[in-house]
Amino acid sequence: MYRTHNCGALRIADVGKEVTLSGWVQKSRDKGFMMWTDLRDRYGITQLIFSEEASSKALFDKARSLGREYVIKIQGTVIERSSKNDKMGTGDIEVEVKKLDILNVSKLPPFTIEDETDGGDDLRMKYRFLDLRRSSVQRNIIFRSQLAIATRQYLASNDFIEVETPVLIKSTPEGARDFVVPSRMNEGQFYALPQSPQTFKQLLMVSGFDKYFQIVKCFRDEDLRADRQPEFTQIDCEMSFVTQEQILNTFEGLTKHLFKKTMNVELSDFPRMQYDDAMRIYGSDKPDLRFDMPFSELNDLAKGHDFAIFDNAELIVGICVKGEAANFSNKNLKKLEEWMKRPQIGAKGLVNVKFNADGSVKSSVGKFYDEATLKAWGERFGAEAGDMLLILSGETDKTRKQLSELRLELGRKLGLIKAGDFKPLWVVDFPLLEWDEESERFHAMHHPFTSPKKEEIPNMLNGDHETMKNLKADAYDLVINGSEIGGGSIRIHDRTLQSKNFELLGFTPEEAEAQFGFLLGAFEYGAPPHGGIAFGFDRLCAVLNGSSSIRDYIAFPKNNQGRDMMIDAPSPISAEQLEELSIDVVLSEKA
Amino acid sequence: MYRTHNCGALRIADVGKEVTLSGWVQKSRDKGFMMWTDLRDRYGITQLIFSEEASSKALFDKARSLGREYVIKIQGTVIERSSKNDKMGTGDIEVEVKKLDILNVSKLPPFTIEDETDGGDDLRMKYRFLDLRRSSVQRNIIFRSQLAIATRQYLASNDFIEVETPVLIKSTPEGARDFVVPSRMNEGQFYALPQSPQTFKQLLMVSGFDKYFQIVKCFRDEDLRADRQPEFTQIDCEMSFVTQEQILNTFEGLTKHLFKKTMNVELSDFPRMQYDDAMRIYGSDKPDLRFDMPFSELNDLAKGHDFAIFDNAELIVGICVKGEAANFSNKNLKKLEEWMKRPQIGAKGLVNVKFNADGSVKSSVGKFYDEATLKAWGERFGAEAGDMLLILSGETDKTRKQLSELRLELGRKLGLIKAGDFKPLWVVDFPLLEWDEESERFHAMHHPFTSPKKEEIPNMLNGDHETMKNLKADAYDLVINGSEIGGGSIRIHDRTLQSKNFELLGFTPEEAEAQFGFLLGAFEYGAPPHGGIAFGFDRLCAVLNGSSSIRDYIAFPKNNQGRDMMIDAPSPISAEQLEELSIDVVLSEKA
Repeated sequence: MYRTHNCGALRIADVGKEVTLSGWVQKSRDKGFMMWTDLRDRYGITQLIFSEEASSKALFDKARSLGREYVIKIQGTVIERSSKNDKMGTGDIEVEVKKLDILNVSKLPPFTIEDETDGGDDLRMKYRFLDLRRSSVQRNIIFRSQLAIATRQYLASNDFIEVETPVLIKSTPEGARDFVVPSRMNEGQFYALPQSPQTFKQLLMVSGFDKYFQIVKCFRDEDLRADRQPEFTQIDCEMSFVTQEQILNTFEGLTKHLFKKTMNVELSDFPRMQYDDAMRIYGSDKPDLRFDMPFSELNDLAKGHDFAIFDNAELIVGICVKGEAANFSNKNLKKLEEWMKRPQIGAKGLVNVKFNADGSVKSSVGKFYDEATLKAWGERFGAEAGDMLLILSGETDKTRKQLSELRLELGRKLGLIKAGDFKPLWVVDFPLLEWDEESERFHAMHHPFTSPKKEEIPNMLNGDHETMKNLKADAYDLVINGSEIGGGSIRIHDRTLQSKNFELLGFTPEEAEAQFGFLLGAFEYGAPPHGGIAFGFDRLCAVLNGSSSIRDYIAFPKNNQGRDMMIDAPSPISAEQLEELSIDVVLSEKA
Repeated sequence: MYRTHNCGALRIADVGKEVTLSGWVQKSRDKGFMMWTDLRDRYGITQLIFSEEASSKALFDKARSLGREYVIKIQGTVIERSSKNDKMGTGDIEVEVKKLDILNVSKLPPFTIEDETDGGDDLRMKYRFLDLRRSSVQRNIIFRSQLAIATRQYLASNDFIEVETPVLIKSTPEGARDFVVPSRMNEGQFYALPQSPQTFKQLLMVSGFDKYFQIVKCFRDEDLRADRQPEFTQIDCEMSFVTQEQILNTFEGLTKHLFKKTMNVELSDFPRMQYDDAMRIYGSDKPDLRFDMPFSELNDLAKGHDFAIFDNAELIVGICVKGEAANFSNKNLKKLEEWMKRPQIGAKGLVNVKFNADGSVKSSVGKFYDEATLKAWGERFGAEAGDMLLILSGETDKTRKQLSELRLELGRKLGLIKAGDFKPLWVVDFPLLEWDEESERFHAMHHPFTSPKKEEIPNMLNGDHETMKNLKADAYDLVINGSEIGGGSIRIHDRTLQSKNFELLGFTPEEAEAQFGFLLGAFEYGAPPHGGIAFGFDRLCAVLNGSSSIRDYIAFPKNNQGRDMMIDAPSPISAEQLEELSIDVVLSEKA
């Protein structure tokens, strides 16, 4: 037997017990006649004591030979510590060691196994099995496990059934790029890995499963940005005979349950905001509501004053920085303007209006606008003495996006975001379609199976191009602290409407049939009204922990080149494998 | 709102309530002045009643227009049925319909949506979304969901952490064929889909996760036999600082928990049998213990009587059919012998010895053996008057396998297997290595990470070829009713021993390093003693339900060509996709 207790278990009540423990040597302190060793496992750390008095010379020498991360088993007696440590559960006791077995030795790890480690990112990824020994990293993975348990608990108790959908499916050119898998038994043919189980969960609704969920791996072969992974995990859900309202309530319930169970945080009811309002007031479909600072528009008050930049702008829009926070030096204002002009944001300039404590008004565009006009602007923002307006202008969409970046930067810089604060929000009534100027075609804003709002159906079936641009869908996102953690929609369950949607998205009837014939066919056999949602599980883990990196919540993540540094994958395969699969590698000229 | 209740909810206490229901039209009975329609959903069936008296003509006509599998929503009043049906939960009531909405129409399904359907296998696979509407199929998928819940419940309450391991990993030629995934970002390189998370779960032990589990999809590109799927699901588990004994107890506990929770079956403690004994007594490493009929060997009693077939045989071994069941006609004995001689089994002949009620003995080899000798055989088997011995001879392994097939066939044919009986068994002490005569090399009996038994380690490090053949491992299988539902082992956690094992398996040091360097490397940084097990989840579902087909427990299974008939995958992909992935299709000449 390797242990009677784990390394986090022993308490003052255990004093006098003979125990066996196993674990890793965290560190040792050698005082000559006495030596203390911290023994670590997943559950905690227990202090071991070797003393010249109580231990044989052989045992003492063996203890001295222990290096960091050696794996040992000890037998000994639990004794009370003279100097207690109230920061650890086992801090009242130590174990006087009588027998020591070295179960395995360890080379010196390439970085320290501590919360604050000296290992760089690449090194820690290569030795991920050691990085995962650090308790800060281990805690994240354990948190993820607990979040999954709490998710399943809620959904199962609400009659959802977890159904596994296939991983080897069919490639569909719509959406992101598929990862594909050559089929040996079907020469020249390929499976694809699912970007989501979307069509399968809809088929499960057609099958009458009524309420489905799955915590499931999904795959997208995209160029990886900092916080994307080629494989990621979704909480995927679908319900039949439901309205949007019922879906929002069900998954607001799930979210509250998760916060309560894993963080002991009670969330109040989630506010709802229309997509159009979110864009108009926060310039974003995922506004961070941990601080206010809404947009106000000034077209009517700012045009016609011979300031050409504003006169020629489609939109003039600004935010109001309140009180203390508004005391920007000119130097800081300049810096902020430079930040806004970087190509990542691309603003042309940044107009400011300061409402001084003495009632005077000062503005970077003061020569075009008199004080009365500037004060009228201030009124629109509800600006008080001491506040400052920051104003952008230009094309509507671009300008809103730039101002949204500015708002978020100020929220961070000015300390307006309280740690541990959670502000969930439902954004609803997304547009159905998005017009892409470049390719001159519509894209699905959510995905091609999303239903227009009921009252929009006649418009969708008969409308002109402009009508199509403005169609609203029964589509919704759950946003927390400015991160989209879930999104879904009521789906189309009618073959005619689904065919119309494919047509609008530029599919020929033949293409629609070849790719989604099975779904269109299923709609002819009594498809119920249905809808659902999918949560990004990795992102949810991160947001609950106030972290911005999903990688911290994935046991074995890949780097930005889609590479697993630890196992060194992907890698070449043998000529025999290629031949069996009836494929050949054709390197491009650049390679 | 689509419903106030589901179709399985209403009871006599609900009489008088105004309700809204939605579901599928199962069938209608039209009596002219009255019409009954069964409304179905996942939860049950509720009878609707339309009557000339209570309904408007328009409503009655609309009700008459309903076809099978139409999706409808009704509003009405719950009334007591005059003729109750005690076979269904809602059998005491019916709903008098006041309002009827047709939510979706349905074409006539290609087969009936009943437990006993008229649809053939291929048709049901093509329309799997309709097949899944049949309550017998739906029950299987719901059972699977419940089994997963019970599994997670037990493991989580025993401190196991569920960790997701990656799906895009590295190809390793050892074992079965990998499915591979070309990497677009790493030209000419491929990911592989995991055949199991074996190395990752071992790394998680090196990381100190202590107790890991995962219900996880695994992939093998094998030629598919009737009951294999290219993607299948495992309950994958690993523990640190454990002995084999602790693992067996933990997972015996899991198995008992699953039977209790999902079937309300209490299993007694599982017997254990050594691999060598299982092979000697039942000719199989997964004996079905629902009936007895052990093997007895006769070499000492049957050789040297001038019966050349026995004299030249490596092994003479038989079974004893008891009492009534042994009353085979000569015709049936002949048929059984023919069955044994089929190429699938390949026996040369079948010797019988009958112990008649009058004390006489009759045998197909009576001319070589006198009655005293035959009676001595009978004694060895514990044969009584009325019993019959069936005896095979030949090469040891082959003969045992043939006799095992005969034993199972007799168990089925003679009705020795009681429905609802469960006989679990641990088979332990598997050999470490298996010598393959053809390729003249060792294969790992379990897998290359399995540890020899502690006392075998010196033999393994220094033994000769014969010693290697006989090395025993800390490897075990859980068998229920003759199906292997789980298997595992204590793993090697020492780099030297692991390298030695790779060497025995024919890896050069370079090959071992290229494929498993990350694991060998990890062993140098304090790997703890560890071991684990994996259960075939699909098989477990089937065995618990007394079914022989795992396909019945998979929502969207593939056929024997690895094809999903419903979505028609795999399929060709576009030239652009191939080019992006830097691969080309090279059809073989046969194609």
